[in-house]
Amino acid sequence: MGKTIAQKIFDAHLRDTPTPENMVLDLDVVLCHEITTPIAIMDLMEKGMDRVFDPNKIKAVIDHVTPAKDSKTAAQGKIMREWAKRQNIKDFFDVGENGVCHALFPEKGFIRPGYTVIMGDSHTCTHGAFGAFAAGVGTTDLEVGILKGVCTFRAPVSMKVSISGILQNGVSAKDVILAVIKKLTVNGATDKVIEFTGPLVDSMNMSARMTLCNMAVEAGATSGLCYPDRVTAEYLWQFIKDDYTTIDAAVAKFEKWHSDADAEYASVIELDVSELEPQVTYGYKPDHVKNIREMEGTPVDQIYIGSCTNGRIEDLRQAAAILKGKRLASGVRGIVTPATPGIYSQALEEGIIKIFMDAGFCVLNPTCGACLGMSSGVLAEGEVCASTTNRNFNGRMGKGGMVHLMSPASAAAAAITGTISDPRQFLAQ
Amino acid sequence: MGKTIAQKIFDAHLRDTPTPENMVLDLDVVLCHEITTPIAIMDLMEKGMDRVFDPNKIKAVIDHVTPAKDSKTAAQGKIMREWAKRQNIKDFFDVGENGVCHALFPEKGFIRPGYTVIMGDSHTCTHGAFGAFAAGVGTTDLEVGILKGVCTFRAPVSMKVSISGILQNGVSAKDVILAVIKKLTVNGATDKVIEFTGPLVDSMNMSARMTLCNMAVEAGATSGLCYPDRVTAEYLWQFIKDDYTTIDAAVAKFEKWHSDADAEYASVIELDVSELEPQVTYGYKPDHVKNIREMEGTPVDQIYIGSCTNGRIEDLRQAAAILKGKRLASGVRGIVTPATPGIYSQALEEGIIKIFMDAGFCVLNPTCGACLGMSSGVLAEGEVCASTTNRNFNGRMGKGGMVHLMSPASAAAAAITGTISDPRQFLAQ
Repeated sequence: MGKTIAQKIFDAHLRDTPTPENMVLDLDVVLCHEITTPIAIMDLMEKGMDRVFDPNKIKAVIDHVTPAKDSKTAAQGKIMREWAKRQNIKDFFDVGENGVCHALFPEKGFIRPGYTVIMGDSHTCTHGAFGAFAAGVGTTDLEVGILKGVCTFRAPVSMKVSISGILQNGVSAKDVILAVIKKLTVNGATDKVIEFTGPLVDSMNMSARMTLCNMAVEAGATSGLCYPDRVTAEYLWQFIKDDYTTIDAAVAKFEKWHSDADAEYASVIELDVSELEPQVTYGYKPDHVKNIREMEGTPVDQIYIGSCTNGRIEDLRQAAAILKGKRLASGVRGIVTPATPGIYSQALEEGIIKIFMDAGFCVLNPTCGACLGMSSGVLAEGEVCASTTNRNFNGRMGKGGMVHLMSPASAAAAAITGTISDPRQFLAQ
Repeated sequence: MGKTIAQKIFDAHLRDTPTPENMVLDLDVVLCHEITTPIAIMDLMEKGMDRVFDPNKIKAVIDHVTPAKDSKTAAQGKIMREWAKRQNIKDFFDVGENGVCHALFPEKGFIRPGYTVIMGDSHTCTHGAFGAFAAGVGTTDLEVGILKGVCTFRAPVSMKVSISGILQNGVSAKDVILAVIKKLTVNGATDKVIEFTGPLVDSMNMSARMTLCNMAVEAGATSGLCYPDRVTAEYLWQFIKDDYTTIDAAVAKFEKWHSDADAEYASVIELDVSELEPQVTYGYKPDHVKNIREMEGTPVDQIYIGSCTNGRIEDLRQAAAILKGKRLASGVRGIVTPATPGIYSQALEEGIIKIFMDAGFCVLNPTCGACLGMSSGVLAEGEVCASTTNRNFNGRMGKGGMVHLMSPASAAAAAITGTISDPRQFLAQ
């Protein structure tokens, strides 16, 4: 019987099998941010184990609340900073060089096909877009990862989501993943690995694939994965060109990390998205999803464009295409946070920052910020946000606030009208 | 005997003299921000006095922590927002249109020569740069101001600070005011009005005059003032052109708000700044001031360029002139926050945002933020910040942090070297 990509990655990284269910894997990278890592660092220090398995395989960033909003977050940053220095972690990204972890680390070329990746963060699954096995872990696993470079997982059980069809103008990866989660429900992929495959995924750029994989966890999945291919190789080329003589050679090598045709899946879901309309969440769970037309006219107080789901240059371009020459509706606040300094600079270069400014948006530095109600746009009681982020849990962006998840294009449309709106009306047919 | 500008403004606005010492003045504008105003609003509501004396004379902004960093600040914003709507306050500046109050309100033309201005904020004195009497007040005075449009002050006692000489390249208004405060001490102008006069002040643009007046309170002054003149008229022209046929006519009218030659002063200080070197604070009081050369080599962790003192376009230009083509020193964090969206847009247009980004700065949206340790760059225990702000009190930018106040040029020099540095070394001689 053939193997899935997850099984192949597990095989290649297996160090030990203490019990039949538990597989101890070697880790290629351990990613760290300032919310969950300081707890691990302090605990390791208390235990007299202030070490790291390999400083070159640890990548760290201050991204959730940056620059620090108070003494507590300032202290968290300081712990990270001093740890990076003490442990000789070169790839540490502090204020000015920092951005949302799941956008920044791929941009720096840290994630490669076939890699094992952990982080103390739910949306670590984003990195599966590169054909890596990437999973969010708790503090104990993070500590072990930092110290030993290993992590224990159950043998992977995969499900396949095969997506075909051509997306309508104004419909994007965010709408696709919302439709997938609606279909799967928030428990539909619990403890499983989702493989996103099919012609549509093959045609997607890395940014769109990251949007898909980012929200795999919202269906309960441990990880989401795409097969690494030419798109992956081209994205990574500047980092891997010394390892492969040609892109073709890289693409050929990457095929090692494709599932076999006869691999076993817990389930296979086929989805044709040709007729898919823009999607939006209406409730407090990510599977509370409707066609945006069903929610049209719902008033919003705030627009938030950014995050590891939709804060990349492609996302900003989609929003800017709709916002260009237009203004925010009266009484509506617009916030945009390019996910990394690289994205910010690119947006500056392309005139996108100016489009957002001219539309009346507040342009923030790169940060996770309001996505999880930690800073930079927290909602007040009773306020409603049209957001390109990934979670609409009750209180996620602020106690008593309501979050409607949607694509960058839909968020831009809501900015103009002040209500949930179909973005297709603002696009040339 | 002649009168001072403050006496003339008091005469023109006097409504009542309940006791010989107390003068009740009519107010031309009441300025509001989201830290001190919600307390007043809530108190007025509780008293059944949820009214405003004149919605057109109230100007309000959310600027201290924006976008909201938590539920508390989100609630403060919401109180402001709903109040502005309820009371028909048209000049309310919310996320996207908001900026540091003392930079935003002058930019919008709200401050005019001869005006009386109050706000629940220490640095309200900034507006004295327009020849207005502008003073920070407490909650009770703010409530009365909002409700009745009046405020009670003692009869003004003025002191004159007459400044002559030509500033060296690399020395600016911030260095001048630091030198003045050093000379006066933090109590030297307590309960007095400082008039900044003399050939140097006459030659200054409005931005530099605002820097001077902004820090009058750091010497204890109730207000700082400059005489309104052609520079003032040109700055305000777009707002006043319907009231005066020509700039000359405006300048002539403004002379009404100059002190008489035989006015009485508590003291007169003469200062020649031709030899003035860049200044810096070394301790926890604004009069702990030294020549920057005496502090050279002191390591800094963070650079902060912004605030009502030095976040205007002229300030950003001065910093950018030094930063252009250079990078932040390793291990040093750089933060810049243009004080208003207008300044941000102008800086974008002039390529200044790009210069900061290329240098490795974190470019923030306009906000007071870290200046008072409220958000966006709070220091951790033991950290040191080179800052263009106005207060170096112990813990001001974060508990256990040290703030060295300096000019934008000096902050830019510190960014490059990672230590307190004389900016003149980076400027063409």
